Amino acid sequence: MSNYYHELAAKLFDDIEKDTADSAGVSRPAYSDIETRTLAYLEAFAKENGLASCSDAAGNLIFSRPENIDAKEYILIGSHADSVPQGGNYDGLAGIIAGLLCLLKASETSATFKHPVKVMALRGEESAWFGPCYISSKALLGQLSADELSSKHKSDGRTLREHMEAVGIDTAPIAEQKPLLASEEVLQYIELHIEQGPLLVEKKIPAAVVSGIRGNFRHKRIRCVGEAGHSGAVPRAYRKDAVMAFADLMTRLDESWLTILQKGNDLVLTSGMMGTEPAKHAMTRIPDEVGFSLDIRSQSSHVLEAMKLMLRGEMATISLDRGVRFEMDEEHSVAPALCDPQIVEGLSEAMQATGREPFVMASGAGHDAAVFANSGIPTGMIFVRNRNGSHNPLEAMEISDFMVGTEILFQYLTE
Amino acid sequence: MSNYYHELAAKLFDDIEKDTADSAGVSRPAYSDIETRTLAYLEAFAKENGLASCSDAAGNLIFSRPENIDAKEYILIGSHADSVPQGGNYDGLAGIIAGLLCLLKASETSATFKHPVKVMALRGEESAWFGPCYISSKALLGQLSADELSSKHKSDGRTLREHMEAVGIDTAPIAEQKPLLASEEVLQYIELHIEQGPLLVEKKIPAAVVSGIRGNFRHKRIRCVGEAGHSGAVPRAYRKDAVMAFADLMTRLDESWLTILQKGNDLVLTSGMMGTEPAKHAMTRIPDEVGFSLDIRSQSSHVLEAMKLMLRGEMATISLDRGVRFEMDEEHSVAPALCDPQIVEGLSEAMQATGREPFVMASGAGHDAAVFANSGIPTGMIFVRNRNGSHNPLEAMEISDFMVGTEILFQYLTE
Repeated sequence: MSNYYHELAAKLFDDIEKDTADSAGVSRPAYSDIETRTLAYLEAFAKENGLASCSDAAGNLIFSRPENIDAKEYILIGSHADSVPQGGNYDGLAGIIAGLLCLLKASETSATFKHPVKVMALRGEESAWFGPCYISSKALLGQLSADELSSKHKSDGRTLREHMEAVGIDTAPIAEQKPLLASEEVLQYIELHIEQGPLLVEKKIPAAVVSGIRGNFRHKRIRCVGEAGHSGAVPRAYRKDAVMAFADLMTRLDESWLTILQKGNDLVLTSGMMGTEPAKHAMTRIPDEVGFSLDIRSQSSHVLEAMKLMLRGEMATISLDRGVRFEMDEEHSVAPALCDPQIVEGLSEAMQATGREPFVMASGAGHDAAVFANSGIPTGMIFVRNRNGSHNPLEAMEISDFMVGTEILFQYLTE
Repeated sequence: MSNYYHELAAKLFDDIEKDTADSAGVSRPAYSDIETRTLAYLEAFAKENGLASCSDAAGNLIFSRPENIDAKEYILIGSHADSVPQGGNYDGLAGIIAGLLCLLKASETSATFKHPVKVMALRGEESAWFGPCYISSKALLGQLSADELSSKHKSDGRTLREHMEAVGIDTAPIAEQKPLLASEEVLQYIELHIEQGPLLVEKKIPAAVVSGIRGNFRHKRIRCVGEAGHSGAVPRAYRKDAVMAFADLMTRLDESWLTILQKGNDLVLTSGMMGTEPAKHAMTRIPDEVGFSLDIRSQSSHVLEAMKLMLRGEMATISLDRGVRFEMDEEHSVAPALCDPQIVEGLSEAMQATGREPFVMASGAGHDAAVFANSGIPTGMIFVRNRNGSHNPLEAMEISDFMVGTEILFQYLTE
């Protein structure tokens, strides 16, 4: 894409960053006036550039070339306008701007879309504000639960429903779980997003095609309970050391992880929060309790099921070996969402056509795309290289990489 | 020993427990009026029973048969009168009462001691009150440092020196590190103490001979520093996961531990306090920091030196494997204290002579005996079976087991 689009993209990112700046990074709360202002800015830009736009029943904005705004069969390019508190500017916003640039370029060149294209700027994707994630896409597809609708804002304690109504959304049909989108009209859902991991940076590749979104199962706090004792006075054979048992478990899970990867399967595994009990632990006290979280993700539901069994099995063996017990908390799980193989193929061909070796990778983080994919809409994603992860002010996408991703998208839509 | 001594011991333990009871267990703070009261109670009992007594320059009480109070060559039976806050009644006190019973029995029977015997009720052994441990024995041997003397009480913030003076001790010679005890007069130092681990309970043995006191090296907080990242988005190969690195380290140390034990060497190893950083950890964030303590003990200084090297070596390998770094804090170490082989032999023979299979074991916890042993005084210890560890109100020694230990001591002193 020409330098013109590069500069246009830079200006759009800059303007919105300035308008939504926080003491660090940007804050565009879900269903807030700031989010509404970002949508209004995008709508004004679209109108100035001859594009059509309209709102939907979930408060999202839809853009298209004027002749396509009422199309009954279309490809939907979607991404979210909100950010986490003090987040980066690109997570979400990049996908909307990429879609808008594709519409503009199609208007200004002789290229034509294979199918009508609509671009959707979604509200409320981030879980940071109310707890639930993918709020808008769930609402559109009639999947927002009563619990989610009555979840409370992290700061002001008002419910999601109140916040939705405050920005003008009629929440009655959402509460009744009526689909607000005619999903049979959506031929495909495509989302461009910054990569939230380091793979493209490490591999020196500006953009990639996504094969699917990892599902996961999570435990917020599993307890490993052993027995306290004097650190100097209890021989190894009589210990029930919860820290040693936890170390065993992590080492064994790590070994299984390596084996699973070596066999070509997908897996990531994290214990992000763990520790002995500050109220009773001491340097000279054999630790009788460790609490720890687990977050296990894979693109394959078979791998996730195998890991659930593996986890129970290792815990059972370690309990016998070490004289400890593991107390599980509630398991939360999300099914993996596979991208449509034909779309993956098509996006790979588009990548090739723009002069780059196709690269396909899994998405570890969740996206609105997962909701569309799991609702039966053929779905695809493009990742753009990005440094320093996301959900923090250091998030760093190069506009030139963004243009590579946008070019792949444009190529896919027109070829 | 006859039922008379059994009941006498029970009464002494009971009286002192009642006098020093706290809301849970007993509290006999080092260099406090309560500790002074316990010494005064014991002195009154000794006098009533025809024993001689005197104070020493460190505020300890010495008991003996009247003809031995000025003996210039003697065996010293020592133990401490203080307890930890809300501790058990037997830790320390058992050794004093055992000594007193031996003096009484020698007075009341025809048995004669091989050497004159003095029994010392020591003050201030527990580190819980001021930080330093073995305060009285260090003071007696001219080894209490200026830092230790100016350490502050855990509750009132007054220094150890002030507390010593408040109970009538002249601290000037202690500050000058002048020995207050003519150590060349002490032929042997013998201490009876409850076992603070579960070995005798597990082995169903009422008492044991101690081979030595484990030395140790300790780290209060080592940091393992990796790199944060999105738990779903960073593949295994690009992670610098501090929790996985910590688990590796503990698993490898545990493997070395097992090997060292299998070769017949002595070792215990504990990470009693560890965890990710609550200020920044999250279930979906790859942990970039783990802090952990280490307490590694052995009777062998060679094993301790080997473990120091092993620790550094494993950390270096894991740093390479995992892309993390380990930041060491200051190392604190205490040399192992070996009991005198002839005393171990003699106490074993005494155990045999009282009709029990000799059993020799290491002491994992530290004792005043370590200070005497490391000052060149031939030292021995007897352990008495005790449930539930020590330093807590659940500490549980049976008087009948205590009588077995006291009998071994009496046999040793007279035979």
